[in-house]
Amino acid sequence: MDFLTELKNRAALVDRALAQYMPPADAYPPLIHRAMRYSLFAGGKRLRPVLALAAAEAAGRNPEPVMPAACALELIHTYSLVHDDLPAMDNDDLRRGKPTNHRVFGEAAAILAGDALLTLAFGWLAGCAGSLPAERVARVIAEVAEAAGSAGLIGGQAVDTLSSSAEMDEKTLEYIHRHKTGALFRAAVRTGAILSGADEARLASLTAYAENLGLAFQITDDILDESGDPARMGKTAGSDQKNKKATYPALFGLERAAEKARRAADASVAALENFGAEAAFLRQLAQFVTGRDH
Amino acid sequence: MDFLTELKNRAALVDRALAQYMPPADAYPPLIHRAMRYSLFAGGKRLRPVLALAAAEAAGRNPEPVMPAACALELIHTYSLVHDDLPAMDNDDLRRGKPTNHRVFGEAAAILAGDALLTLAFGWLAGCAGSLPAERVARVIAEVAEAAGSAGLIGGQAVDTLSSSAEMDEKTLEYIHRHKTGALFRAAVRTGAILSGADEARLASLTAYAENLGLAFQITDDILDESGDPARMGKTAGSDQKNKKATYPALFGLERAAEKARRAADASVAALENFGAEAAFLRQLAQFVTGRDH
Repeated sequence: MDFLTELKNRAALVDRALAQYMPPADAYPPLIHRAMRYSLFAGGKRLRPVLALAAAEAAGRNPEPVMPAACALELIHTYSLVHDDLPAMDNDDLRRGKPTNHRVFGEAAAILAGDALLTLAFGWLAGCAGSLPAERVARVIAEVAEAAGSAGLIGGQAVDTLSSSAEMDEKTLEYIHRHKTGALFRAAVRTGAILSGADEARLASLTAYAENLGLAFQITDDILDESGDPARMGKTAGSDQKNKKATYPALFGLERAAEKARRAADASVAALENFGAEAAFLRQLAQFVTGRDH
Repeated sequence: MDFLTELKNRAALVDRALAQYMPPADAYPPLIHRAMRYSLFAGGKRLRPVLALAAAEAAGRNPEPVMPAACALELIHTYSLVHDDLPAMDNDDLRRGKPTNHRVFGEAAAILAGDALLTLAFGWLAGCAGSLPAERVARVIAEVAEAAGSAGLIGGQAVDTLSSSAEMDEKTLEYIHRHKTGALFRAAVRTGAILSGADEARLASLTAYAENLGLAFQITDDILDESGDPARMGKTAGSDQKNKKATYPALFGLERAAEKARRAADASVAALENFGAEAAFLRQLAQFVTGRDH
């Protein structure tokens, strides 16, 4: 099976689990549950859950018990997109080629649906204690809360939204990317590894893998935003530039940015040198990320 | 010591713990951390943490190890107020006599600060596994996530914000109150009790106490909004009516609403009949809630 098919199969498993865990669209109050489901099932690539499951696999375990925790990371990712798109934040009308949550359900429902997705994530994480050691679950929840919090994902979003373009230098850009994307990639990999009982040495290698993967992913995302095909991307090419967003190509030019992405992908593969075939998928994913065209 | 002094002393203990646990105002990015602290330290009565600690006491345990979890409930309460006040929601300019979060820090920062308070709450809850059994911690996190989620606090807020006045009947009003206020009161008491190892019988009694207390509190809040002294309340009297909010006095008249509040308070005290002096504070609190003038 080629890698893209494998990736899609794994994403489909995540989709099936999400559909199974989510409250139905007609659960009371229906507007909130419809709004939650709308953004969760809007065509995400499920990279964070796939990473968590693959990290469990790399730790030598069956990834199945990790599935609710893996899906929780997708809830957090989705909530952050719903809130980022709000008029007071990035004020985006389109996301993955569809109207953003607040354009469909209104601003109040979008705020509440985001809050509810975030809250539900911690419920799913806690629920893992039914089949996995509660100490590991508590450790993962503490780490995910930190990764998603004011010194992680939210911190990155805050600096991105609230910085003027004059303040944007390489250091600020790296902070944004390391926190907005990197923190949750890192938490996803660590979630899968910790819940699967990985020892601290393997955990450290997987963490280095995730940090470099996050960087490679984000730089490539920036490059695609400037040069990609808008029909495939689901947003207007150059929209980051329009919003005066910090990007790697803006700071370094396309070519040097692409070189940085390749180096980060290589570093993520190198971090797995002590792993065998159990990490094959993670290695392929790192190479795929920089070569992807959407 | 009279009850009010006792209540204030306990709230002061919570304040001290919150000040100790919170990230400093100058933590990067400072705007978010200042916004988080602004609403958290804006003069809340700390009822939910006090309830959690008193429930631990009623379960016969030292409430100290429960403090981070108790404080987590105040973070969730605070985040819900910050988001409820947003222009897209209730659009309030004042809260406890001070400008609301988005009036001071802007809408984007208020959204992110709310998100960060909610996220931090789960971090503090998970951190309890350092000194309490992780199984209890995981159970509490699952319960708090449910109480705060789309079928709890957020559900209540959604129905409150999105219902037209024509749809407002007793059933809808009860749903709103049971979820907007009741769910977190209930979760606070259960958090303290579960973390302290209360047996299921005591847990059920404390849960009945909390549910009735929440109702008594909410009805009294409605009554005060219509008849109270605005200077003491920190918001304009009649502001719920202006916003076409559902209230008990609007549906039942002031006198019958007050009678309902007293009955709920009595029921909450009655739920504790199998407890001794260890529940004295909870009993006094129930009577205090309906007699309070601010």
